[in-house]
Amino acid sequence: MIFQLPITDKKLSNDKYKKIIDAAIKVFSKQGFYNSKVADVAKVAEVADGTIYLYFKNKDDLLISIFEHSMDYFFQQVQKDLKTLSCPLDKLKRFIELHLMLVHKNQNLAIVLQVELRSSHKFMKEYQAEKFFQYLKLIEDIILDGQEKNFFTKEINAEIAKRAIFGAIDELALEWILMKHKRYPHEEAAKQLFQLIYNGLKLKAD
Amino acid sequence: MIFQLPITDKKLSNDKYKKIIDAAIKVFSKQGFYNSKVADVAKVAEVADGTIYLYFKNKDDLLISIFEHSMDYFFQQVQKDLKTLSCPLDKLKRFIELHLMLVHKNQNLAIVLQVELRSSHKFMKEYQAEKFFQYLKLIEDIILDGQEKNFFTKEINAEIAKRAIFGAIDELALEWILMKHKRYPHEEAAKQLFQLIYNGLKLKAD
Repeated sequence: MIFQLPITDKKLSNDKYKKIIDAAIKVFSKQGFYNSKVADVAKVAEVADGTIYLYFKNKDDLLISIFEHSMDYFFQQVQKDLKTLSCPLDKLKRFIELHLMLVHKNQNLAIVLQVELRSSHKFMKEYQAEKFFQYLKLIEDIILDGQEKNFFTKEINAEIAKRAIFGAIDELALEWILMKHKRYPHEEAAKQLFQLIYNGLKLKAD
Repeated sequence: MIFQLPITDKKLSNDKYKKIIDAAIKVFSKQGFYNSKVADVAKVAEVADGTIYLYFKNKDDLLISIFEHSMDYFFQQVQKDLKTLSCPLDKLKRFIELHLMLVHKNQNLAIVLQVELRSSHKFMKEYQAEKFFQYLKLIEDIILDGQEKNFFTKEINAEIAKRAIFGAIDELALEWILMKHKRYPHEEAAKQLFQLIYNGLKLKAD
């Protein structure tokens, strides 16, 4: 488990809380969210069943907490990495690489986020996934910055493009984690995807 | 329900079978697959519970049948529409328009395919979705044709691009069906997406 926990997060500095989250990622990715019981998570985390309810309301809350913490971690990484870059092209390239690299390094977590989370009605239909909109905003900001600096064409609507770009990255990540025999390394997917999106957004010379 | 049924399909020419499929789309899209019972589908279809088991093994089989029939219908539409076109650019444009137009016309079906189907572990992890690979093959053929006719750059790997393009279309379709207040018409999404992908694949003049 390479899922690095944000140090600033008070809850995650709590050892038991962290053990439960890690165990839930393991259990949900192996057994599937619907087939998992809170007791299974407790067993892997080596805590009493009741301990889990001190930190989480229920199994759905546990799933949503995994999402929220991993998004926080992603934002930390993106901010750290992107602040050293000023060119929107470099930012776009780094963003795509970072997303696919984190999927590669955290495959259990990726299964939870890409398969299990989306099978939760609570998440898909009831929960206001603010952190997902923050993620989309990161892409939108890169596009708008690139349009302002005349790297990208203003003909493309950033609202629509950010969803299309997220969809493309997300689908390649899903294919990659579900592929039994990896046909290509994640770096190759990142390179190709950047090329496709960069060409797609680029301001024409004429 | 504008979901047009392929006339050539023997099963679907059976009235009861068709009524059950239509009812299942209605029930699953409203209540969610996990919260739906076969009895709920029977009630809406106005058939006895046992009748459903004459045609379908179980609830999962019903869900997968919806997927298979709707993919068959999509292939029919694509083949009919695309055979009149010879330019790969027109084909790509029409493919994107057709996908988003069908989502627009069949929103209940789209919810079943985009939210409910993917919440099925059976579908995501056990079922060999041959028809999904056929769908991807349609995109790949357009890309390869465009590369051969020197419309599209050969620098882009068609294997990776077809998944990225599917991901982009699929995510825009999902956003569109989940949006309570449509911020833009589906035609606008299709236009923008075509522009982005066309620019992305286009052979550079230099």
